[in-house]
Amino acid sequence: MTKRMIGIQEIEDIALGAAVLGTGGGGDPYIGKLMATEAVRKYGSVELVTIDEVGDDEMSVAIAMMGAPTVMVEKMPGGNECVEAFNAVQSFLGKPIQYVYSIEAGGINSTIPITLAAQLHLPMIDIDGMGRAFPEIQMVTQSLFGITATPFTIADEKGNSAVLSTIDNRWMETFARNIAVNMGATAHIAAYAASGKQQREAAVYGTLSLAEKIGRTIRESRAAHVDVIAALRQVTGGFVIFHGKLVDVQRRTVAGFARGEATLEGIGTDVGSKMTLQFQNENLAAARDGEIVVSVPDLITMVEEDTGEPITTEQLRYGFRVIVLGMPSHRHWRTAKALEVVGPRYFGYDIDYVPVEQRFQ
Amino acid sequence: MTKRMIGIQEIEDIALGAAVLGTGGGGDPYIGKLMATEAVRKYGSVELVTIDEVGDDEMSVAIAMMGAPTVMVEKMPGGNECVEAFNAVQSFLGKPIQYVYSIEAGGINSTIPITLAAQLHLPMIDIDGMGRAFPEIQMVTQSLFGITATPFTIADEKGNSAVLSTIDNRWMETFARNIAVNMGATAHIAAYAASGKQQREAAVYGTLSLAEKIGRTIRESRAAHVDVIAALRQVTGGFVIFHGKLVDVQRRTVAGFARGEATLEGIGTDVGSKMTLQFQNENLAAARDGEIVVSVPDLITMVEEDTGEPITTEQLRYGFRVIVLGMPSHRHWRTAKALEVVGPRYFGYDIDYVPVEQRFQ
Repeated sequence: MTKRMIGIQEIEDIALGAAVLGTGGGGDPYIGKLMATEAVRKYGSVELVTIDEVGDDEMSVAIAMMGAPTVMVEKMPGGNECVEAFNAVQSFLGKPIQYVYSIEAGGINSTIPITLAAQLHLPMIDIDGMGRAFPEIQMVTQSLFGITATPFTIADEKGNSAVLSTIDNRWMETFARNIAVNMGATAHIAAYAASGKQQREAAVYGTLSLAEKIGRTIRESRAAHVDVIAALRQVTGGFVIFHGKLVDVQRRTVAGFARGEATLEGIGTDVGSKMTLQFQNENLAAARDGEIVVSVPDLITMVEEDTGEPITTEQLRYGFRVIVLGMPSHRHWRTAKALEVVGPRYFGYDIDYVPVEQRFQ
Repeated sequence: MTKRMIGIQEIEDIALGAAVLGTGGGGDPYIGKLMATEAVRKYGSVELVTIDEVGDDEMSVAIAMMGAPTVMVEKMPGGNECVEAFNAVQSFLGKPIQYVYSIEAGGINSTIPITLAAQLHLPMIDIDGMGRAFPEIQMVTQSLFGITATPFTIADEKGNSAVLSTIDNRWMETFARNIAVNMGATAHIAAYAASGKQQREAAVYGTLSLAEKIGRTIRESRAAHVDVIAALRQVTGGFVIFHGKLVDVQRRTVAGFARGEATLEGIGTDVGSKMTLQFQNENLAAARDGEIVVSVPDLITMVEEDTGEPITTEQLRYGFRVIVLGMPSHRHWRTAKALEVVGPRYFGYDIDYVPVEQRFQ
C-alpha cells in the first residue's frame, strides 16, 4: 500500500472542498491554502492516514483557529502559535501525540492542521469532529461520545497563551471564546486530544478525503466546462434549495462571532420568491418566503452559480448570483441527543429538525 | 532564634489589620479569617519567615482570590482550588516552590495564603506585593522590577481551571479578569512566582507583621478602652482626613469589579463639609467638598469611629459614623514609573499625585 500524501495540489483541493462543507464559516480558504502551502513547500508533504491505521492507544489532537473569521481576513496569522499550542497539550498530557486532525471542515480549519503536521513531521488522520463547520467548541461529535476538550490550549500571535481545563465542553466554549475575543477576536487552539480507540467511535471519518474530492470536482468541472452545480450535487449528496441574487447582507461581529443575515431574490425557477440565510460564522437556517426549509445540523452553502466557488459569510457581497445547496449532515448529528447540541432549537429557532432529503430531491 | 508561627490569634489580628491596609478592598476579613483558622486548626500553625531567611534561589508564589469581593461574600470558597492553582504553577515551572506569600494586604488575600501554607506545610514570607490592596493584577511592586505574573493559574470551585502565559502583566489582567467573571466573578489564583533574590529587590517587606500589629493594636485598644483612632494613627503613620456619617452609597458590579461612590456628611470638626470616596474594589480617591485631598497610591480607609473596625466597600451602609484615614504608600509606589501604573491618572483622575503627609498632619 502506498502512502497517501498531502502536497500542494491536495491542499488546494481540500481548502476549496472544505469551504463547501464549511457552510459559510470556517474561514477564508485562500488564507488556509496559503499557510499550508508555505509549510508543505518548506517542510515537505504530509502523510494522511485512515482511522483504521491508527493504533488504539495512539494519541491525536485537533489543531484549529477560533474566533470571528471576519477578523482572520484582516489578521494573517503567524506560524509558531500552532506549535506552542500543540506542545502545551502534549506537556499537559505527559505523553507524546502521534497524529493531528482537523476539528472541522472549513477553509482555514481543514488546512491549519496541515501546517503543523508539516512543521512537526506528523501524519494527519482523515477524520474531523463535524463533517462540516459549526460555530461553537463543544459542537463536535467527540463531545457526544464523552471526549473532553481538556487540555485545551489557546495562543495568539503576540505570545500570550492559556491552557484550560473545564468540567465540560460547554464551559470550554465560554472560557475560550472570551480569551479569543481578548486575543483580538482570533486565536490558535489545540484541543480534543483522543486515542485511536476513542476516535474510532466518535469521529466523522474521511472528511479530508471528501473535501479533497469536492475541491477536485469543482476544479475539473471548471476545466472541462461541464455543469459544476450538477457535479457538486453528486459528490456531496446535496440538493439545490434556491437560485438567487444577493440583495442584502447584515453582518456584525458580536462576542467573538460573525453574526448576520443574507437575503436572496429568486432568479430562474425561483423568480418571485425570497430566501433569507441566517448565520453565526456558519449558515444556520435557510427560510424560503418566511418558512425555514433547511436548518442545522444539515449543511447550507452558497456557491457562485457559474463557478461553484463556495462563498463564506464574510465574503457575501450585494449582487452575487448564487446557488444555495442543502446537504445532509452526518448520522452522528441526527440523534435526539445530538440535536440538543446542534439542532435548530439550540440556536433559537422554534422548529423541529427535518432532514434536508425529506424536503428536497 | 525561635520560629515565628501564625496561629489562631495571629490570623485574627492579621485579618483585621490587613483590612485597614486593604483600603476598603481585599475582601471581608471575616471570611478570610474563617478559612485560615479552619486550616490552621486542621493542619497546624504556619511558619512566618522574613525575606532575609529566604535563599537567593528559593522560589515563592503568591496565592490569592480575584474578582468582585461583593460576590465573595455570597460565595464562600471551597478549599482545593488553592492547591490546584499552586500545583499548576509548580508543574509549569518544573521546580519546587518553597514559600507562599500574600499578593496584597486585604481581609481575604492576606489570609488565603495561610490556608494553603497550612495545608501544604509550607512557610510564608513576611512580604506582599502592594503594602495595601489594589484592584488590578499588574499593580504589584513585583511588576515594577520585571517579575512576570506568568505562569498564572486560576481555578474555580466547580473544577474549571486555566494556566495563563502573557507577554506582560497588563495582558494578564485582561485575560484573568475575564476568566474570573466567567467563573462567577470570583476565583482562586497562584501567580508571580519569584526567587528570593527577586523578592529581595521587588517585594514590600513586613506587610504581614504590620497587619498583625495593626490588628493587635485595635484589639488591645478596645479591651483597654483607650482611643483606638489615636492608636491606629500611630501604628499606621496615617492621618485623620475626615470624620463623618455615611449618607449615600452607589455601588455596582462592573466587569468583575465592585465600583461605586460613598458620600459622607461631616460631623464633629468636619461639620458643614462633605467627603466623597470613589472606589474600584479599593478606595481610589477622597474628595473634600469637591476637591481631591488624598488619592492612590496612598491608602484611604474608613473605620468605625468607636471601634476602629475597618469598613470594606461592600459593607458600606447608610448611617455609619466613620473616621477616614489617609496613610502613606510604600516608597516603591511613589516613583514616576510606579505612578503610571497606580497613580491617579491611571484611574482617570486628572490630577497630580500629592503625598498624603504633605496635606495633612
